[in-house]
Amino acid sequence: MLVNGVKSDVLPATDRGLLYGDGLFETLKIVDGEPRNWSRHVARLTDGCRRLNIAMPESSLLLTELHTLCLGEKRVVAKIIITRGMGGRGYAPGQSLPTRIIQCFPWPDFPAKNAQQGVIVRVCSLRLGDQPLLAGLKHLNRLENVLARSEWDDPDIAEGLLRDGKGHFIEGTMSNLFMVKQGVLCTGSLKYNGVAGIMREVIIEHARLLGIPCVQQAIDKAQLKEADELFICNSLFGIWPIRKILELNDYIVGPVSQLLQNTIKER
Amino acid sequence: MLVNGVKSDVLPATDRGLLYGDGLFETLKIVDGEPRNWSRHVARLTDGCRRLNIAMPESSLLLTELHTLCLGEKRVVAKIIITRGMGGRGYAPGQSLPTRIIQCFPWPDFPAKNAQQGVIVRVCSLRLGDQPLLAGLKHLNRLENVLARSEWDDPDIAEGLLRDGKGHFIEGTMSNLFMVKQGVLCTGSLKYNGVAGIMREVIIEHARLLGIPCVQQAIDKAQLKEADELFICNSLFGIWPIRKILELNDYIVGPVSQLLQNTIKER
Repeated sequence: MLVNGVKSDVLPATDRGLLYGDGLFETLKIVDGEPRNWSRHVARLTDGCRRLNIAMPESSLLLTELHTLCLGEKRVVAKIIITRGMGGRGYAPGQSLPTRIIQCFPWPDFPAKNAQQGVIVRVCSLRLGDQPLLAGLKHLNRLENVLARSEWDDPDIAEGLLRDGKGHFIEGTMSNLFMVKQGVLCTGSLKYNGVAGIMREVIIEHARLLGIPCVQQAIDKAQLKEADELFICNSLFGIWPIRKILELNDYIVGPVSQLLQNTIKER
Repeated sequence: MLVNGVKSDVLPATDRGLLYGDGLFETLKIVDGEPRNWSRHVARLTDGCRRLNIAMPESSLLLTELHTLCLGEKRVVAKIIITRGMGGRGYAPGQSLPTRIIQCFPWPDFPAKNAQQGVIVRVCSLRLGDQPLLAGLKHLNRLENVLARSEWDDPDIAEGLLRDGKGHFIEGTMSNLFMVKQGVLCTGSLKYNGVAGIMREVIIEHARLLGIPCVQQAIDKAQLKEADELFICNSLFGIWPIRKILELNDYIVGPVSQLLQNTIKER
């Protein structure tokens, strides 16, 4: 692990990342020592820093540190955390230099059948709060995700779907959600909550290149139930079709999901 | 600073307090080495741990550590942070032992006139999101407070008032809000957001003992404008009357506010 470029596995207990969750993070897939979708991760982090008014570290510095940490690794997960830095007490952001933390983790043991045969998911009872000033950001205030993820511990359930206060489906606890209906791809709107996932963005772009219409809008329970295909996605596992939403419906692993899976794999 | 009972000013960079804001804190006034309102702080922390399913450390242990850290201090601020402890990647809470951090800070330089003559406050444009599962808790997900507090930097403005999505006034960025109208005390409802402040609780209890009716309910802009008296409160500064809300109205430092100030001082 690197903290501000120095090998370390600790950080000051007065860092605002701890005190207030005052920061952002990125989770990256690293293959042969190189981060996938690097420019997209940089763009999201830059946008997040701008919105939170945190000074974004040079992306070349982050890349150099990622290279140092992941050198020679065949396939690992890296995490970049940027916080507003040191602070005493009080919410007012001071003039502190941001803290950057680069972490490296073993590749998770994803079952191969998840991508091929699809996964079982559930609907979480927690409803996401609305906060347009934070919507889309991968910030460090993640208690909603923690609480939602602690609603189940059955390992056969791969993900929990999250709704907003109006009952619209936004995303999963660690993934974004896509629906296919009559050839149109649809993913939840992220105006008021949710994380603008990198894989979500990649999929939207590839759908456009493939001529698949794609909309970002509210998805309600009735639409979800009647979907032709459903899948979840993130930067690590790519696309997992949903074969069952507990207590709602069963789904096929359909042609649009498979086409997108193959397109993403071929890149 | 003590981290898990050991003198240290750092914590592991894989602590879930940093990764997800997965924890709680208390800010305490320490006088002659003893925390004020200790049993109330313990009760709130215990309730928070129960709601987040974090194992609450023994309160006697926390008190011993506070004593160790604040020994001989005339008047200081202490902070207790409890996190879910170490975690790798992923939102699912594991079996980790909680982390406890005790910090001690110099007493802030509050201007004496704030309590006597009242303060100027503003209305923040940020609207608090609704999240009943976190409402009332003093958890570590405080980006809303950070963003609201960064809306102004004029040192003459003592606080910013926070509304929910419906425009109801809930609290301040670092305080709770009370209104007096025709002898009735009213403070914002904390069902969907906000922090259940210790001083707020003390004031509600003292109002009851003094025979002042007190209600917790939605406060809208029109009610706020027409209030007879207004004040903000927290565990450190006690009660500050509001003498002006920018672009709304001016107020007197009234008898109910003064009675409560004196009652709290005499305890």
